[in-house]
Amino acid sequence: MSLQKPALDPQNVEPRSRSSYPEPYRSRVLPRETRALGEALGLTRIGVNLVRVLAGKQSSMRHWHTHEDEFLYVLEGELVLRTQAGEQQLTAGMCAGFAAGSTDAHHLINRSERPASFLVVSNRDPEDSAHYPDPDVDLVWSPPHARKRMTRRDGTPC
Amino acid sequence: MSLQKPALDPQNVEPRSRSSYPEPYRSRVLPRETRALGEALGLTRIGVNLVRVLAGKQSSMRHWHTHEDEFLYVLEGELVLRTQAGEQQLTAGMCAGFAAGSTDAHHLINRSERPASFLVVSNRDPEDSAHYPDPDVDLVWSPPHARKRMTRRDGTPC
Repeated sequence: MSLQKPALDPQNVEPRSRSSYPEPYRSRVLPRETRALGEALGLTRIGVNLVRVLAGKQSSMRHWHTHEDEFLYVLEGELVLRTQAGEQQLTAGMCAGFAAGSTDAHHLINRSERPASFLVVSNRDPEDSAHYPDPDVDLVWSPPHARKRMTRRDGTPC
Repeated sequence: MSLQKPALDPQNVEPRSRSSYPEPYRSRVLPRETRALGEALGLTRIGVNLVRVLAGKQSSMRHWHTHEDEFLYVLEGELVLRTQAGEQQLTAGMCAGFAAGSTDAHHLINRSERPASFLVVSNRDPEDSAHYPDPDVDLVWSPPHARKRMTRRDGTPC
């Protein structure tokens, strides 16, 4: 018998392959499979997503959050965590965490030949913005006065 | 080479076996192994714990939170989720979620003969209180004017 809420089998949540990134960043993350577990369970104070990153793809562009803690837990496969300090290989059972306001930008890269999955959890804060410090990534997520929108660093829409 | 923060191998976090419950509830949850992953990673807006529940033990008494969303993800073994609606068996890869203020109290019971592990994540809210509706559990966690303290339902200290 299938699980009833408040329990959930993630495989029963329809995966999405969406990104708010414009090109050329969009193609670096899509296609992907994101299952919005927190949303499916009616949660609003934390966001919980199960993300399957295909071979050669990235979880996101390297970024940090102003008002949201972020926690990642690898469930399957191999992912390279890239931060200011360099790269580390994460395998199933390993995790990482980034405090709100810490400017150590991060992302995950799947350099293996098979998909890799991770859980990602954050608090949800309407004041949050994400910054992308890499010189080749001209993006800001939801800067002041551009709520829930992606812009260039100078504030112009993507 | 071992991982450097912001990455972390949970096995390098010292497990704790603590509970704020008085007896007879305390013995229903201890001994256990709780690894405070969020704390180890410097997170303050979300709490993240990896909990190993021994055979015959429970994750907690059945409870619900006033101001904190709670998300559980089973990593290993078998755990029975008990809520108002009854019981459901959760195995590795299954999850459950409880929105802040939802009065559907819950806990996990390990009725198997081996340990079971789960990740539990919440937002952190200083206004939060936990209520324990089962008739045989006379506890309130952090009711108004008793911050970060366990009391009986009538407000007297445990």
